[in-house]
Amino acid sequence: MEKNVESILRSGDVLFLMLGAVMVFAMHAGFAFLEIGSVRKKNQVNGLVKILSDWSVSTVVYFLVGFPIAYGICFLRPAEALISQDQGYQLVRFFFLLCFAACIPAIISGGIAERAKFWTQLAAGAVFAGLIYPVFESIIWGRYSGPLQGWIEDLTGAGFHDFAGSVVVHSIGGWIALPAMIVLGPRLGRYVKQKSRPIPISSIPFLALGSWILAVGWFGFNVMSAQSLTGISGLVAVNSLMSMVGGVLAAVFFTRRDPGFVHNGALAGLVAICASSDVVHPVAAFFIGAIGSFIFIKGFTWETEKLRIDDVLGVWPLHGLVGSWGGIAAGIFGYKALGGMGGVSFLGQLIGTSVAVVYAFAGGFIVYKLLDAVFGIRLNEDEEFRGADLSIHNIDAYPEETIKP
Amino acid sequence: MEKNVESILRSGDVLFLMLGAVMVFAMHAGFAFLEIGSVRKKNQVNGLVKILSDWSVSTVVYFLVGFPIAYGICFLRPAEALISQDQGYQLVRFFFLLCFAACIPAIISGGIAERAKFWTQLAAGAVFAGLIYPVFESIIWGRYSGPLQGWIEDLTGAGFHDFAGSVVVHSIGGWIALPAMIVLGPRLGRYVKQKSRPIPISSIPFLALGSWILAVGWFGFNVMSAQSLTGISGLVAVNSLMSMVGGVLAAVFFTRRDPGFVHNGALAGLVAICASSDVVHPVAAFFIGAIGSFIFIKGFTWETEKLRIDDVLGVWPLHGLVGSWGGIAAGIFGYKALGGMGGVSFLGQLIGTSVAVVYAFAGGFIVYKLLDAVFGIRLNEDEEFRGADLSIHNIDAYPEETIKP
Amino acid sequence: MEKNVESILRSGDVLFLMLGAVMVFAMHAGFAFLEIGSVRKKNQVNGLVKILSDWSVSTVVYFLVGFPIAYGICFLRPAEALISQDQGYQLVRFFFLLCFAACIPAIISGGIAERAKFWTQLAAGAVFAGLIYPVFESIIWGRYSGPLQGWIEDLTGAGFHDFAGSVVVHSIGGWIALPAMIVLGPRLGRYVKQKSRPIPISSIPFLALGSWILAVGWFGFNVMSAQSLTGISGLVAVNSLMSMVGGVLAAVFFTRRDPGFVHNGALAGLVAICASSDVVHPVAAFFIGAIGSFIFIKGFTWETEKLRIDDVLGVWPLHGLVGSWGGIAAGIFGYKALGGMGGVSFLGQLIGTSVAVVYAFAGGFIVYKLLDAVFGIRLNEDEEFRGADLSIHNIDAYPEETIKP
Repeated sequence: MEKNVESILRSGDVLFLMLGAVMVFAMHAGFAFLEIGSVRKKNQVNGLVKILSDWSVSTVVYFLVGFPIAYGICFLRPAEALISQDQGYQLVRFFFLLCFAACIPAIISGGIAERAKFWTQLAAGAVFAGLIYPVFESIIWGRYSGPLQGWIEDLTGAGFHDFAGSVVVHSIGGWIALPAMIVLGPRLGRYVKQKSRPIPISSIPFLALGSWILAVGWFGFNVMSAQSLTGISGLVAVNSLMSMVGGVLAAVFFTRRDPGFVHNGALAGLVAICASSDVVHPVAAFFIGAIGSFIFIKGFTWETEKLRIDDVLGVWPLHGLVGSWGGIAAGIFGYKALGGMGGVSFLGQLIGTSVAVVYAFAGGFIVYKLLDAVFGIRLNEDEEFRGADLSIHNIDAYPEETIKP
Repeated sequence: MEKNVESILRSGDVLFLMLGAVMVFAMHAGFAFLEIGSVRKKNQVNGLVKILSDWSVSTVVYFLVGFPIAYGICFLRPAEALISQDQGYQLVRFFFLLCFAACIPAIISGGIAERAKFWTQLAAGAVFAGLIYPVFESIIWGRYSGPLQGWIEDLTGAGFHDFAGSVVVHSIGGWIALPAMIVLGPRLGRYVKQKSRPIPISSIPFLALGSWILAVGWFGFNVMSAQSLTGISGLVAVNSLMSMVGGVLAAVFFTRRDPGFVHNGALAGLVAICASSDVVHPVAAFFIGAIGSFIFIKGFTWETEKLRIDDVLGVWPLHGLVGSWGGIAAGIFGYKALGGMGGVSFLGQLIGTSVAVVYAFAGGFIVYKLLDAVFGIRLNEDEEFRGADLSIHNIDAYPEETIKP
Repeated sequence: MEKNVESILRSGDVLFLMLGAVMVFAMHAGFAFLEIGSVRKKNQVNGLVKILSDWSVSTVVYFLVGFPIAYGICFLRPAEALISQDQGYQLVRFFFLLCFAACIPAIISGGIAERAKFWTQLAAGAVFAGLIYPVFESIIWGRYSGPLQGWIEDLTGAGFHDFAGSVVVHSIGGWIALPAMIVLGPRLGRYVKQKSRPIPISSIPFLALGSWILAVGWFGFNVMSAQSLTGISGLVAVNSLMSMVGGVLAAVFFTRRDPGFVHNGALAGLVAICASSDVVHPVAAFFIGAIGSFIFIKGFTWETEKLRIDDVLGVWPLHGLVGSWGGIAAGIFGYKALGGMGGVSFLGQLIGTSVAVVYAFAGGFIVYKLLDAVFGIRLNEDEEFRGADLSIHNIDAYPEETIKP
């Protein structure tokens, strides 16, 4: 019977992470539909192919390079060796964490939409998912987490806490996207004589579909971050829910029920809560999400209207700013005095969050500057005007409407 | 090892309900797409925002008021206390049951589509999810279930059986929606000089997408109603399947393959089987679904053509009539003589089902009459004509097609 | 406590297969959207209704006939007897395997789209899901697997290995579809004076949505083919992933990023890996998928341009050719010398795969020839020209655009 119990524990862990991986994999369909709803019709095919191609390249590089960097586990051994000890637990763990790594190019994709070259962007994604992201992952969650975490703990009494990646995933992705958009410049016609001229999006239903898929999958992102069945916590699930709901309601009240903000508000709430979903109270989670949504709304307006950075899906405020907020929020609402579980420090969260911002911005800037200098990262004017679909993929999203047979 | 087994049992229950909650949460995307496929394009944004906002408000009120009413458990204690005993099982149980409560406004939303005011409807949803529904829940499933269930059992030999909510959820929702639609009146142009003029819907693909999402999530709705891993029953899953299939095939045969009826027929089958999915035979389930679908088809035609009630998605026949049928069907096909598990009584089912009809209709009528008198619940003619999207949300569903940058 | 452990094992198995069943059930929504994206708008409703109706008919015939044929288990006993031993494990096993059986008509549906009669196709689907498929299932996986598997094992040293159905499901489906398309003939205008004139498809976003739904659900298809919780293997999950990714990247490189091929390339990778997902190395899986995708691309072009077979979704190359490739690939990359788990034989795989091709082609040919002779299987010219939506369903996909109220 003891064997049975061990077998259940092992199988349960594999199932647990497999379900998490599938749910977060599904989120990438959400990234795709969120993007194609938010761009013009002439760039929808490009959005779809980009997300799926980025995912695929990320899988290869994270399998061969990224995961080994972050956790010191290499899969280039016979199949039998991969499952003999643990029924392939490390394999599904790779799958689960790949889904996080692959968020980086998926996040960037939404910011630079409608004007980036295909191959250079694919290459950039490979560098982020295979190298830049895993190095940061390794010093926070992975095998080199000793030094930085130890130093923060010595200094503040608690390590840097990021349960499911507000900072490690979202903030890194958003702060890499920022230099990408700066180097790339705005879309043609987005700013005319320093005046902002918003470009109408194609489809609220697709945007909403993307948001729903992301929101549903997000429960795998957060809950399964426990990485073991017996580590599951109902608190993580309900905090994710409450923060999402806070994000929605803040957007409902602060934007006159704007559908784009309401559906992205849900996502802002979910970005904000990743870090602290295991240590705060559900009521705190509600406010973390509501504040996150407010930051997203104000940040997006400030970015696109004042800074004149053309961030098509608002990925820098959504993942960068709100992700950073999530990191800091864990250091506020995690305290026992505010109903939290304790074991966090404000200063520690501030340090970890700041390191991520600097690291991601610098990494993104260098990669995009280099790629721009060597290959060029932007479509030429004619290609952009025709749309990425026809320029890059030789077909548009609704061929029946445009091609006469 | 005993500790391990206990830990697995506890974690298994949390995972079980968490998966159920996520599946039923996803159903709300289904409600949204079912609605936007069934309305005109000028009301699609409104459908999307309404469902997500209703969900969010329901979460808050059910967390603070509804769940405590129904089950006597309050979460306003430190986070540590929420997970110390049970890894947060009660939290995910709240999440799971919230998904049921939030169905009430989602069901109503489809009936009153294209003409209701935003804020008053949001308020109505809050009252239903936070108060009206939980009170009924408490006397059937919850902490006050003693008196009514006891009385029915004394009278008939068996309590009122509603495994997954044909009556508690769907019938309550549908019978609240009926007075809402009566008080609200039909859409402009829906009936002209007492003659019915059906308004063409915008998108069968979106309607079908909504139906698929609902159908898939429904297996969480029914199977996870066991609320504990070791209580899982394959019978519930297969009965749900068979009833859905009966609903589809009845619609295929009785409506000349009409896509709206076929996709809603699947849902009719699923509504009908909730109550009895744990006590009937799969063959009986098939007929329960087929009869449910037939009731939906005839009921919808009768309602909209004869009674001239403008029920955009047919929510009264689908959830109200078919939900009531589901309650009664458990008292027919549940008997051992018909292959069922026994332990049900026809009279008991009839009583429980009737109480729900009266309660819901009265509750809905009072709430909507009051709201109508105090705030008004209907858009004015001009707003309705322009569409709820532009009137309420200042944007339509496909901005690229309508806004020149 | 022993009772607890047994209960967990039993419940875990039921949950495991239930989750798998739901995931593969969801794939049928994927079949539907893949099809409606790939046909013209005037045939979208038909695609949606066909998939759901085929599913429903398949459920009934597989419940009453197919599953009993394949596994010797009949459910026409009282409900109590269905769950007394195993909490309904055999019921969910039926549900899970039904999802496989129902793939046969869903696969065919995509090939014969836009021109087939409704009722005869529904009847054909019933014969395949209720009889032709289960008979083959029974001799490979089911209760009559002794003779053929024994003979292959005697001959080659290893039985025919098809873990999750590259051959049993996909190849059978694809090779039945081939004679269906031959008997039916091409759509009007598809080939004019022997010249190929491709018919533009309606919607890349719907095609992509279908592909995503299929890809996500596929992890249930493969991983849950273990059919017991403690049999779960992380290798199956990651091999599925790697093969899918190989399929995507091959299509990205070989087709100039064509969105149709890229999204179907993912599916080609997933078809190819089913058979061997438990016995090959992830790196081998990548190449199995990449080669599968290449076969799909070349096969589709050859089929539609040279053979002039009008295969709307490319189901014969995708499921037939690539499914057969998957069967053979298990006999190549499964060897220990190539990093695999061993226990397979190239010759055995070749034999099993070939038997399936002959069986399916013959079965499909006979059924369609008979149906064609007796009832006719094709819409008349006028019906086809108007589109299946109006001809068969009396409504088109976007009524608001075409009907004036």
